[in-house]
Amino acid sequence: MSQVLQSFIGGQWIGQQGAQALRSALNGQTVYQTHAEAIDFGDAVHYARTVGLPNLLKLDFQERAQRLKALAKYIGEHKEQLYAISAHSGATRADSWVDIEGGAGTLFAYSSMGSNELPSGNLIHEGPAFPLGKKGGFAGTHILVPRGGIAVHINAFNFPIWGLLEKFAPTFLAGMPCIGKPASSTSYLTEAMVRLVEQSGILPAGSLQLVIGSTGDLLDRLNGQDVVTFTGSADTAAMLRVHPNVVKHSIPFNAEADSLNCAILAPDVTPDDEEFDLFVKEVAREMTVKAGQKCTAIRRAIVPRQHLDAVVEKLKARLAKVVVGDPSVEGVKMGALASHSQQADVAERVALLRQSAELVFGGGADFSPVGEGVAQGAFFQPTLLLCQKPLQTDSVHDVEAFGPVSTLMPYDGMDEALQLAARGQGSLVGTLVTKDPQIAARVIPVAAASHGRLHILDRESSVESTGHGSPLPSLKHGGPGRAGGGEELGGIRAVKHLMQRTALQGSPTMIAAVTGEYMRGAKLIETDVHPFRRYFEDLQIGESLLTHRRTVGEADIVAFGGLSGDYFYMHFDEIAAKDSPFGKRIAHGYFVLSAAAGLFVSPAPGPVLANYGLDTLRFIKPVGIGDTIQARLTAKRKIDRNKKDANGVGQGVVAWDVEVSNQLGELVASYDILTLVAKKG
Amino acid sequence: MSQVLQSFIGGQWIGQQGAQALRSALNGQTVYQTHAEAIDFGDAVHYARTVGLPNLLKLDFQERAQRLKALAKYIGEHKEQLYAISAHSGATRADSWVDIEGGAGTLFAYSSMGSNELPSGNLIHEGPAFPLGKKGGFAGTHILVPRGGIAVHINAFNFPIWGLLEKFAPTFLAGMPCIGKPASSTSYLTEAMVRLVEQSGILPAGSLQLVIGSTGDLLDRLNGQDVVTFTGSADTAAMLRVHPNVVKHSIPFNAEADSLNCAILAPDVTPDDEEFDLFVKEVAREMTVKAGQKCTAIRRAIVPRQHLDAVVEKLKARLAKVVVGDPSVEGVKMGALASHSQQADVAERVALLRQSAELVFGGGADFSPVGEGVAQGAFFQPTLLLCQKPLQTDSVHDVEAFGPVSTLMPYDGMDEALQLAARGQGSLVGTLVTKDPQIAARVIPVAAASHGRLHILDRESSVESTGHGSPLPSLKHGGPGRAGGGEELGGIRAVKHLMQRTALQGSPTMIAAVTGEYMRGAKLIETDVHPFRRYFEDLQIGESLLTHRRTVGEADIVAFGGLSGDYFYMHFDEIAAKDSPFGKRIAHGYFVLSAAAGLFVSPAPGPVLANYGLDTLRFIKPVGIGDTIQARLTAKRKIDRNKKDANGVGQGVVAWDVEVSNQLGELVASYDILTLVAKKG
Repeated sequence: MSQVLQSFIGGQWIGQQGAQALRSALNGQTVYQTHAEAIDFGDAVHYARTVGLPNLLKLDFQERAQRLKALAKYIGEHKEQLYAISAHSGATRADSWVDIEGGAGTLFAYSSMGSNELPSGNLIHEGPAFPLGKKGGFAGTHILVPRGGIAVHINAFNFPIWGLLEKFAPTFLAGMPCIGKPASSTSYLTEAMVRLVEQSGILPAGSLQLVIGSTGDLLDRLNGQDVVTFTGSADTAAMLRVHPNVVKHSIPFNAEADSLNCAILAPDVTPDDEEFDLFVKEVAREMTVKAGQKCTAIRRAIVPRQHLDAVVEKLKARLAKVVVGDPSVEGVKMGALASHSQQADVAERVALLRQSAELVFGGGADFSPVGEGVAQGAFFQPTLLLCQKPLQTDSVHDVEAFGPVSTLMPYDGMDEALQLAARGQGSLVGTLVTKDPQIAARVIPVAAASHGRLHILDRESSVESTGHGSPLPSLKHGGPGRAGGGEELGGIRAVKHLMQRTALQGSPTMIAAVTGEYMRGAKLIETDVHPFRRYFEDLQIGESLLTHRRTVGEADIVAFGGLSGDYFYMHFDEIAAKDSPFGKRIAHGYFVLSAAAGLFVSPAPGPVLANYGLDTLRFIKPVGIGDTIQARLTAKRKIDRNKKDANGVGQGVVAWDVEVSNQLGELVASYDILTLVAKKG
Repeated sequence: MSQVLQSFIGGQWIGQQGAQALRSALNGQTVYQTHAEAIDFGDAVHYARTVGLPNLLKLDFQERAQRLKALAKYIGEHKEQLYAISAHSGATRADSWVDIEGGAGTLFAYSSMGSNELPSGNLIHEGPAFPLGKKGGFAGTHILVPRGGIAVHINAFNFPIWGLLEKFAPTFLAGMPCIGKPASSTSYLTEAMVRLVEQSGILPAGSLQLVIGSTGDLLDRLNGQDVVTFTGSADTAAMLRVHPNVVKHSIPFNAEADSLNCAILAPDVTPDDEEFDLFVKEVAREMTVKAGQKCTAIRRAIVPRQHLDAVVEKLKARLAKVVVGDPSVEGVKMGALASHSQQADVAERVALLRQSAELVFGGGADFSPVGEGVAQGAFFQPTLLLCQKPLQTDSVHDVEAFGPVSTLMPYDGMDEALQLAARGQGSLVGTLVTKDPQIAARVIPVAAASHGRLHILDRESSVESTGHGSPLPSLKHGGPGRAGGGEELGGIRAVKHLMQRTALQGSPTMIAAVTGEYMRGAKLIETDVHPFRRYFEDLQIGESLLTHRRTVGEADIVAFGGLSGDYFYMHFDEIAAKDSPFGKRIAHGYFVLSAAAGLFVSPAPGPVLANYGLDTLRFIKPVGIGDTIQARLTAKRKIDRNKKDANGVGQGVVAWDVEVSNQLGELVASYDILTLVAKKG
């Protein structure tokens, strides 16, 4: 009996009647069915807008980051349930690891980046704010706010868990409810994952809905505050991109399409180098991991003509060792394709490629996978092709066989290798194997124009390299042209892509009120209490202290030189200092900084626990002997990450604006200091 | 005799035979014609790719920024030629100022931002680079490189000069050849400007081509490395967005469409407040400047119901004073629409709007502009409408009359005002007039979700405000949804949008070689020469000095406290320090910083002219009494802005990575210092 999968819409699991049969990739038996019941997408969108959105925006960035962490942990604790189901997709344990633990790991990574890099609240100030006039009354800056809409994520069959989670994590941080639609053929894994998410009870209601089957009229129900993302074939991407309602409302549409990624072996690497074997290993690995069903797999291996034979021999030997079959059988390294339609599709494309490339390995003629009952499985033999004249051939750069298939291409000279790489017309990723930093410095900027990610492999990086084919949460995923022109992941960039950037103009006081960040010229709050004696909760942005003054004498310079050991001529050599642009001896910049701290410090123990850093210090004017300095210290920014110190005392981060001026009121030094400030509670 | 305008393609001016007649907006006479000769867009694209692109990339960011400055100056010196022609478009001198001097000003602004914020070379390192493993052999970062393609900019009729220049400036900085296509009706101004550009000889050949008339098959000739931008109607934007070749190659398409921008008078402002008059003035000004033909004009004035009558009276009185006619006549404040087809279009849309809004002022019944021969001009009277039930009416939020036309809308309560603002379904800009920072803090984040720019107007900002309707080079221009979903300007963001962002992975040594920026873990260059004794040209990234050591004693802390005046308990109070998270007295952070400078300074005069700043200082571990510190100083980044100091000595900027460690090899402080370093030459 095959199980009917259910959609999760409006907080309910929907579906009883079976529709499309989903077959096991291993033995061809029907294991699941999509459901026959139609989804009311009006309900789904209404629920997202009226329940999901307000629920999400009741939390702030920091709280949403914490939820992601809890969710990652929950999925990690229940991962074996997912591994058990994943076997139906033909994946090995290692393949499934990428999907299952890679998915949970992406939640962890976004939790951590969100917590470290996003503010409290729901507004990102993309500053610094800057004056727009000379009198200081008008200023400008940029903010990022939640779009107030929903995100529809349409995914590919190859990573049913990671694929949705890597889109969900930044969407959730950005404060957008999400409707996920996996490719049907492996949607049983996405469904199982969403069931875990629901069971965990960690996400606010309406954060995540799941569509099993078709998206129906979902896209017709969206507006300009929503977003649509898609991972899959270029053809489907092109179709979705011109959807009339998407076009009408300029709905942001982000696509990741399959691409014909390359790996280039640079001419400095000889068959005796460790890098030569690294190249061979990387190509073989990308052919066989996930049975080559990765939009990032190496489809084109570009090698110096003089080393072609050596590459062919080593690669054949390596591929010959790959045991293909049922992953539950000991020793099996590569499983089946994810579905029988994929199997047919790959076979068709290999036939097309063979019109202009010769077969070097595989092809499937005498191939039989190991294991019981696998004759009806969706297996495909690793297949290596060789195109002798790749500059004169189109198909090897255009036809993607989405399986364990790569084509070798010889080149003469690095320019030709770069031309071949660019013939992919835009790729997600490329690898360059070289020992020589000068080659990397010349090749990478040119190759970058047609690649979303570039991976340089040598003996040094190989020890920890995550490999050509692995998108990472901290690095951009998505390439130009054929690859879809999209941009995902890349750290907090992914969150910002899902938010609305708005330029803001007004008086400094208004800008400070909106951004929650003091800017110079805004109204100050001056009281009898030293701002360093305020607890985190009580401290207001704009609370400020103008210190007493201090005259800088020659004795200060002499003493500071003696103590620091800094006898730079500008401070100590009357003759050389006269010829310098300043024309005289001046005080050490770090003395000014230290004296300013002496002016504004509040010595007794208090809420300010530590000064842990300093940013954007600029020495604007020199301080000469006899000058009198004074500092202004103003609370600039507060971030509450809900952290506690070693003693269990709650604390937050406070950044302070510091201006040090001279007796003429001229700014001599300007910087931010970063402190940890205790909470009362 | 009317003049035939010419296209500038492949370095040649093309066109002799007249085609479409372009009439003066003032008197209806034909003053120019487009040319009949077909443009070979194959030639145009080939020229851009084979001549323009290599020419542009022979220069670097800094050199291109300098060319922009020279070009801005040249246009400024020849501006009167443009003012003379601009009269045909019906514009007043003030209107033309925005187009002509606003255009040149945008070149200046991008020259300055490019010079200050971009590196030397043609690669932007969007760092910092970060480790991707625990052993330090594998790291990641992002770079931005020129796309290696061309930019097609299709513009609107209302700003024929600024419209092209504001797109051209960032395109040129980004290293992309540009093909500009102005709207035909005012293309005589764009042609005159491009003739000036050509005469100046400042730009490399192929940087800028001009299309008069239709774009023919131009878009069919582009690929995924190119970009297309469009400013104009939402309908045309939708048509271009789905162009099959644009879709096929995922060509980035950026649109600015007209939008129904709003101004909101907040409920805290009473008719007696200065802000009340500021609101009225701003609405009237946005209606009449450029005869209301701005995609940023205020189309919807949203006012508290209790103040509706007062707004109506004051606005009517102000509009009554606006003299409309030939701008060459003394006292005329508003000229004609730019063309007769615009005049017909605006009249039609006002008729549509009047089906659900009453006429408050204007409408054109008894209207006659001042001046001779103006009866055949494209004039339109300022027209104010009032919609009493704007929540129940669609057309006032949907129908844009692109002329001196606005609609007043009363509201009850701030939430209703925000609902009305959002009914625009995505706008370029909105203005909020309020006295109260708390209202701004509440309203702006909500309104921002549907706006590209928000302008807060009060008595403080009004003194220098550039106004609701003025996009500025430093601030993002473009709004979501109906406004096209595009993003232009916004400082260096605009340059980055036109470049390719690529994630980069590899060993620190490889990443440093590609980015031109040292990262920790990369190979160091250690010689007998102190790196501070190297001239700018000779200094290599990675040159490094490991200093001698210094043991920090209690005497240091005491002396430093005495000299700085910083007696913070953590340094001086044995009892309180014991209870602190560090559990003991520690040295001042600024002492560590100062002592590190003492360790690596090279006292005699040399190439390092000044330490002008410091970035991202973090105190990682405390330094206690008896600890021994040591510093490593490494050349991290060089920027050559082709600047000289007061004595005429050439100099560049060098940033140095500083690591201060303790006797256990643990990092105690980490920062970058910024220096000016002299050139030999």
